Amino acid sequence: MGSRSNYVDVLIIGAGPAGLTAANCFLGSRLNVRIIDKKNGIVEAGKADGLKSISLEVLDSFGIGDGIRNEAHRVEEITLWNSDPAGGLSRACIIPDRIPELGKPREVSLHQGRIEHHMIENLRKRSTIEVEWRKQPVHMDIDLDQVDNPEAYPITVSVETSEDGSDPGLLWQPMHAERDSIRRPEIVKETIHAKYVLGCDGARSWIRQRLGVSFIGDLTDSTWVPKTSFPDIRKVAVIHSSKGTVMSVPREDKLVRFYIQIDAVNPNAASGLARRDLKVEDLLDAARAIMFPYTMEAAECAWWSAYRVGQRVANEFARHDRIFLAGDSVHTHSPKAGQGMNTSIQDAYNIGWKLRACAEHHCGREILATYEGERKPVAEALINFDRDYLKHFAKQHASNHAEFLDAYLKGQRFTTGIGIRYPPSLLISEDVDVRSLHGGLVPGLRLPDFQVVNQSDGVPIRIHQRLRADGKFRIVVFPGDVSQEHAMSRLNQFGAWLARSQLDVEVSHSDGGSEEFFIETITVHAARRADVELEDFHEALHPWSSRWGWNYWNIYADDESYHDGHGEAYQRCGLGRNHDCVVVVRPDGYISVVCELENTGAITSFFDALQPIKSVRPRL
Amino acid sequence: MGSRSNYVDVLIIGAGPAGLTAANCFLGSRLNVRIIDKKNGIVEAGKADGLKSISLEVLDSFGIGDGIRNEAHRVEEITLWNSDPAGGLSRACIIPDRIPELGKPREVSLHQGRIEHHMIENLRKRSTIEVEWRKQPVHMDIDLDQVDNPEAYPITVSVETSEDGSDPGLLWQPMHAERDSIRRPEIVKETIHAKYVLGCDGARSWIRQRLGVSFIGDLTDSTWVPKTSFPDIRKVAVIHSSKGTVMSVPREDKLVRFYIQIDAVNPNAASGLARRDLKVEDLLDAARAIMFPYTMEAAECAWWSAYRVGQRVANEFARHDRIFLAGDSVHTHSPKAGQGMNTSIQDAYNIGWKLRACAEHHCGREILATYEGERKPVAEALINFDRDYLKHFAKQHASNHAEFLDAYLKGQRFTTGIGIRYPPSLLISEDVDVRSLHGGLVPGLRLPDFQVVNQSDGVPIRIHQRLRADGKFRIVVFPGDVSQEHAMSRLNQFGAWLARSQLDVEVSHSDGGSEEFFIETITVHAARRADVELEDFHEALHPWSSRWGWNYWNIYADDESYHDGHGEAYQRCGLGRNHDCVVVVRPDGYISVVCELENTGAITSFFDALQPIKSVRPRL
Repeated sequence: MGSRSNYVDVLIIGAGPAGLTAANCFLGSRLNVRIIDKKNGIVEAGKADGLKSISLEVLDSFGIGDGIRNEAHRVEEITLWNSDPAGGLSRACIIPDRIPELGKPREVSLHQGRIEHHMIENLRKRSTIEVEWRKQPVHMDIDLDQVDNPEAYPITVSVETSEDGSDPGLLWQPMHAERDSIRRPEIVKETIHAKYVLGCDGARSWIRQRLGVSFIGDLTDSTWVPKTSFPDIRKVAVIHSSKGTVMSVPREDKLVRFYIQIDAVNPNAASGLARRDLKVEDLLDAARAIMFPYTMEAAECAWWSAYRVGQRVANEFARHDRIFLAGDSVHTHSPKAGQGMNTSIQDAYNIGWKLRACAEHHCGREILATYEGERKPVAEALINFDRDYLKHFAKQHASNHAEFLDAYLKGQRFTTGIGIRYPPSLLISEDVDVRSLHGGLVPGLRLPDFQVVNQSDGVPIRIHQRLRADGKFRIVVFPGDVSQEHAMSRLNQFGAWLARSQLDVEVSHSDGGSEEFFIETITVHAARRADVELEDFHEALHPWSSRWGWNYWNIYADDESYHDGHGEAYQRCGLGRNHDCVVVVRPDGYISVVCELENTGAITSFFDALQPIKSVRPRL
Repeated sequence: MGSRSNYVDVLIIGAGPAGLTAANCFLGSRLNVRIIDKKNGIVEAGKADGLKSISLEVLDSFGIGDGIRNEAHRVEEITLWNSDPAGGLSRACIIPDRIPELGKPREVSLHQGRIEHHMIENLRKRSTIEVEWRKQPVHMDIDLDQVDNPEAYPITVSVETSEDGSDPGLLWQPMHAERDSIRRPEIVKETIHAKYVLGCDGARSWIRQRLGVSFIGDLTDSTWVPKTSFPDIRKVAVIHSSKGTVMSVPREDKLVRFYIQIDAVNPNAASGLARRDLKVEDLLDAARAIMFPYTMEAAECAWWSAYRVGQRVANEFARHDRIFLAGDSVHTHSPKAGQGMNTSIQDAYNIGWKLRACAEHHCGREILATYEGERKPVAEALINFDRDYLKHFAKQHASNHAEFLDAYLKGQRFTTGIGIRYPPSLLISEDVDVRSLHGGLVPGLRLPDFQVVNQSDGVPIRIHQRLRADGKFRIVVFPGDVSQEHAMSRLNQFGAWLARSQLDVEVSHSDGGSEEFFIETITVHAARRADVELEDFHEALHPWSSRWGWNYWNIYADDESYHDGHGEAYQRCGLGRNHDCVVVVRPDGYISVVCELENTGAITSFFDALQPIKSVRPRL
């Protein structure tokens, strides 16, 4: 690591979920990206564990979603329990953890350390980026004269390597691959010059100035293997009794995570001091009291903590569009909605590709302003939701189930990202220019995830798995049923326009040039796959490369697969099978433009506004 | 590695797919198992690549199936092409690569090195077994006086560490985790005393004496990235033209594997000498000639070779039930049916658990004789199939498609394991004592794979994913619709019998004893999951452990899941939803006993015959 360059395109501070997500946005890039963290290594236990579908889509785009699903526990049901008049507890209802329009599981749970492990291994495999542990910033300057010069490195950060990392509570469990490299570096100072700095260094962020703090309650949080007679211990359970409230969330292996309201743990002590006196046995006693008459023992306690719930949002997410803050460093809230890690991942995914677009494709720096414009409203909405949700949770007897259920379901829509719509900007068009569209495809919304079948090999794939995090925009074409001659003809006219266009898009006429395009096209047609052949499609839609031959991974059918059913992609997008449209999708999976096939002007002017420079760099 | 014990329970020679499968059969075991290989490391490219569903079930039982699926290419279609009268080629048909009764994809392709990588990483994570490279046996003795003493180490093997590994064609690509350990060991000799030796050292096995060799043709085999106008290059394609035959199989990334009949490569040279003169350009020329008028270039050639196809089966698979041979060391054949690696994995999986049962659970050594009895007939059937299949392939013009199709489909059933039935033995009962059964569950057949839903948490799982390779037998109970009182009552009588029985089975009354049981029970009921509760089931069926509490992973419903449809397990097993039966399943997923719930005597006498000693060893 001593030989790493001190001139970096992006310096990421903090290697938790946000920082590692940002780093994974540079897979396959030749930019110089470094990531440092003051800890000794990845967290061993505890902390966040819930991954929502939207975060799994991000991890899919890094190519590691399936590996994480394989280890995680999939959450399928939530149950509500109340005290009954006889002094016991009774189950009020079982709610499926399912959102029909999502078309796939909503969440899995796995401890944060394993998720970080997968992201670090991915960097190792697919990039030259390596986490530098035990390093923390001690000084930062910004040269204001150079802020607007795209080639400058206006930020100077002094970094110190400490002998021991911070956070003694978070022990370093050496990973296999690191077993041989446990060497304590000497204490060294280093000066790093950066084009961009991304602060992902948590709630006690060194970079952020704290703003707007408020508190509404204390909570304990613990993860153990329960030995219990309570029947719903392997479902998400919310238990309201006269002794307090417990929420339990099953995890991988035999683990279960428990949130216990602190008043229930020690009703006579609301002060911070009492909180510090808590022992893990107190938590167990409280759980026992609430869950009586069911028995409860702990086989193994993996992690526990007690803390105040602070709900706050920073009022600035960026400074000079050179220094950015993401994750816990700009918003904190209760862990109950399971949103901390997910929102951090989404923040970092949002800014990651934009930095890459500016540094690698020389897009205008104006797009960086959209980071705060898009993520701050989400953080604010999240805090409001969390505040409401906690209130419902704190009620000792949820007399009105419908009310709780309503808050929960509202949260589900919110937490999947289905409820998020980014405002119009340079990156999000204002208009939808397609008459035949019935919802689904709207600028600012996320592209729905749907299964399609590869035209060439018949393999089904979900579209967000196809949208790898390589920093590319996608022009996704829905040409309708191309076994109809007029539909194929309309599509191929579009292909001919693409081939003629000045966009930095991968098309066949690019013979001999760079292959690092900023844009690729994906066609999702609605014909039966067997009724059309790859050669029927204009070659700009499945481009020939002088190096690799035809591209077989750009044309898909919304058709029945051999083993995995029908994806019904058109229906999920609100399209009829005889309708067509074009959608421009950002590198992070959100929709920029929706237009008719003929309205190529909308596409041209969208990309012109981003000012990307065409790929002209020499091949390595 | 110098500190490894020289007294081992099992010595595995060869760390290819067979040897690594055998080693993975000892995950979680405290036996002393070593695995050596004369190569420098895992193969870099080429060799085998097709994984059938039955092999994926084995890899699932090791916990690495999903990781491999994630990297592999899934094969969905096969196409046949013939020359047409106009001098071109035309597509005769597209065949879905699907077997409806299998209920899942039949095969994926991924190069052998990656599969080996996953198996090695799994050993690293979940066992103390580590592959010892560059070590080869140079001498072996067996003490015949000690062969029948279960506690003896009758086999003595002298092992030499060579400075450079063998097989110069197979370069060692250092894996990440091994980067720091590239040290050339000094040349050392070592004497290993083993209870059992398993020879998985390939076609040129040091241990095996070669037997029964015959040849019927030469073949070339190569893997490259094709740049071609041939439209079916991402499907499996068989192309018969007047210039010869090509079979192409798509692989992960952009790779495609080509089998080209050698006469087509060089029609004037049938001798071995000519074979040695071949260049990769000759293969490309031959492919071009056969596939004319389509164009063909190679972007990157990952691997190629030309060889004779030897079809042979050794006449002994074991000696004194102490030394066993598996994989290529006992059968070789053409690679076209994609069976080499798959049969090797199945061989090793078959002997692996039996050695564990003898060494760990002290089963009678008689069960070891079933290895040859079960696997030799499979090898012979495979050779016969391969011979037929190659003949079809060699025909220059497949005038009769139906014939080829028939052979292909016959092969599909054979290659999935659906067509394999092990003969009656100590491990396979002769009778099926269930009147209501309509096929599916038959002793000697593999338990069908089906999806079930966990009673406690609602998570769907395929049964072979549940059957982890931990050396345990499973008593799988199908009690029918247990929301009917009489059905639940019959099941719970069975549970009460289990609790009373002397079997080494995990049941609740085992308080304080060892938890390393030889048998576990799994219940798959046909009631709606919401209509029954875990506590309705006899506790022997979801045992309480004083250490871990209730077991939530033993009771499943054949019910609709929230996100993955209905598994229709009863239907796939040929059971009505109001019928019941019990199935004893071996650690390798094959069925030993099928009987009525009342016929507990059949179960007792089956296990009594194996003579396992009850787990009485002290806890670690």
